[in-house]
Amino acid sequence: MDVINDEYYMSLALDLASRAQGQTGINPVVGCVIVKDGRIVGIGTHLKRGTAHAEVHALAMAGDEARGATVYVTLEPCSHYGKTPPCCDALIAAGAARVVVACEDPNPRVAGRGIAKLREAGIPVETGTLGERAKRLNEAFNKYITTGLPFVTCKVASTLDGRIAARTGDSRWVSGPEAREAVHTLRHRHDGIMVGVGTLLADNPSLTTRLSVPALHPVRIVVDSALRTPPDARVLQQEAEAGRTVILTTEGADASRRAALERTGAEIVPCGAGPKVDLAEAMRRLGEREIGSVLLEGGGILNGAMLEAGLIDKVILFIAPKIIGGPESPSAFAFAGFEK
Amino acid sequence: MDVINDEYYMSLALDLASRAQGQTGINPVVGCVIVKDGRIVGIGTHLKRGTAHAEVHALAMAGDEARGATVYVTLEPCSHYGKTPPCCDALIAAGAARVVVACEDPNPRVAGRGIAKLREAGIPVETGTLGERAKRLNEAFNKYITTGLPFVTCKVASTLDGRIAARTGDSRWVSGPEAREAVHTLRHRHDGIMVGVGTLLADNPSLTTRLSVPALHPVRIVVDSALRTPPDARVLQQEAEAGRTVILTTEGADASRRAALERTGAEIVPCGAGPKVDLAEAMRRLGEREIGSVLLEGGGILNGAMLEAGLIDKVILFIAPKIIGGPESPSAFAFAGFEK
Repeated sequence: MDVINDEYYMSLALDLASRAQGQTGINPVVGCVIVKDGRIVGIGTHLKRGTAHAEVHALAMAGDEARGATVYVTLEPCSHYGKTPPCCDALIAAGAARVVVACEDPNPRVAGRGIAKLREAGIPVETGTLGERAKRLNEAFNKYITTGLPFVTCKVASTLDGRIAARTGDSRWVSGPEAREAVHTLRHRHDGIMVGVGTLLADNPSLTTRLSVPALHPVRIVVDSALRTPPDARVLQQEAEAGRTVILTTEGADASRRAALERTGAEIVPCGAGPKVDLAEAMRRLGEREIGSVLLEGGGILNGAMLEAGLIDKVILFIAPKIIGGPESPSAFAFAGFEK
Repeated sequence: MDVINDEYYMSLALDLASRAQGQTGINPVVGCVIVKDGRIVGIGTHLKRGTAHAEVHALAMAGDEARGATVYVTLEPCSHYGKTPPCCDALIAAGAARVVVACEDPNPRVAGRGIAKLREAGIPVETGTLGERAKRLNEAFNKYITTGLPFVTCKVASTLDGRIAARTGDSRWVSGPEAREAVHTLRHRHDGIMVGVGTLLADNPSLTTRLSVPALHPVRIVVDSALRTPPDARVLQQEAEAGRTVILTTEGADASRRAALERTGAEIVPCGAGPKVDLAEAMRRLGEREIGSVLLEGGGILNGAMLEAGLIDKVILFIAPKIIGGPESPSAFAFAGFEK
């Protein structure tokens, strides 16, 4: 049974924010609900970077009803001029009587200043309502805005014995249709999708988002120390229904291979002197390109190297009720392993 | 794990509709989500009778992005001029490319005409997406718009042995705080709340909605065949934070008692010649007053009479893990009982 209280309205605001995952780029997802005298009078969600914030949409819907209302917002209202004017000012001008905030904005340009500004204007502000859920929802934004580095989620589909393919390299049988749809939903919600060149050579994936409805396509990122990616690889085909392509390589990679790949429209980014791509530098280069979240889809060697380098923030593991066996069947994380 | 598909967007639209329960009066709750090229570009919900429909709010947020978009709406868009212009025309004018409808509008003035009009304009329309959930959400509207009668939900809080009070009449111990908050949320979501005069005399309830946030107050309805309600009863106190009061009685009720009760601001509505209120007529009288949903809160005699008359549409039962016993402790439904 529902119970109407502050958490009830905040959970709607969080649901609004959650549904916009993937479409705000390096901006946070934010939802807002305005309630006046027991009635919802406005709802809003931030829809796209550079466009109106959640509060602005909700205030537009509420109109004059915002005066004296309670505003529920999943992230501290901004206090600075970014691509849009400060939401604090808009809430003050609209005459909000009370503001309930799920969590502070970790953006160093806000970081409590939004809440302080509202309080200075005499508006009571409560914080922390469903705060943990709100923070988790913006885990990628929270890392990117404070470090400049993308939040890396490693997606693994493995068997019960931790293998991601048969010894022949065939992996198409591991995931069922439900897992595949969930994975494509993850792609929709990430700025970038990253694989190693081994996976590219084995599977020739297109790395696009394929769902039953139109979806967003992350930037396709290949880690390829020696530029072995063939110029006719599917990730280099620049159809309308695909993200652009970035190949992370080393400074010593062959110049003629680089030129051939660049002719396909891909961006080639050297990361370190080699022989292997400097993965930590690679993450900085992706961050500079405003890729705030990366879905790492293997294979095992790249997953293992990213794990060893401490660059993975989260693992999402799909386990198939299957056992493939074989000491040579590839592991989800192929690296020397920790001592203990 | 989420999967983005038609159901995903429709479930957001249904959530938006659901949160507006109680604030649209005899209008249905409706949610709308507009999606363009894999991005949500507009969300809306019907907020109050006589104001913009869900589609209009969502179109306003979407602006030019509505052209070529898919529109998810929980109820068939209206085709007629009611208190606002037809939403069909607005969707056609905005250039919607596809419309997904959860369920048809049972309103005889719509009943498929909205969908037909969209199709005539060349817009593909799919129906039935999460249709059962959508229909259930508007169960009160669906009955009221087709019969003119309120949808009656009987709320009972009983012990394990089906008693609603001790033999002393004391019932305050039956429900815990969670159940009480859920009940007040039910009050918020109903147009009317109804009790029998026995309950009124025993408990002197105020029949207002008391939650931790401001809430909506249903019309207070007392079934009182002989007008035994004392003029100083709490249900007659017309504070700001309470609904108006309607007393259902019989044509033969005492005129001076009636005059005394009318002086408090209550409306006295005779239903039948007596000696008992004609409950079927009473429901018609409430329907005429645009009370489309009634929360019946007992006691056992009124619940039993309403059940016998076939006027209860739904029962919500809170069961306390208690046993009170006693053949004279009142039952949730006190009537002669069915033969078999």
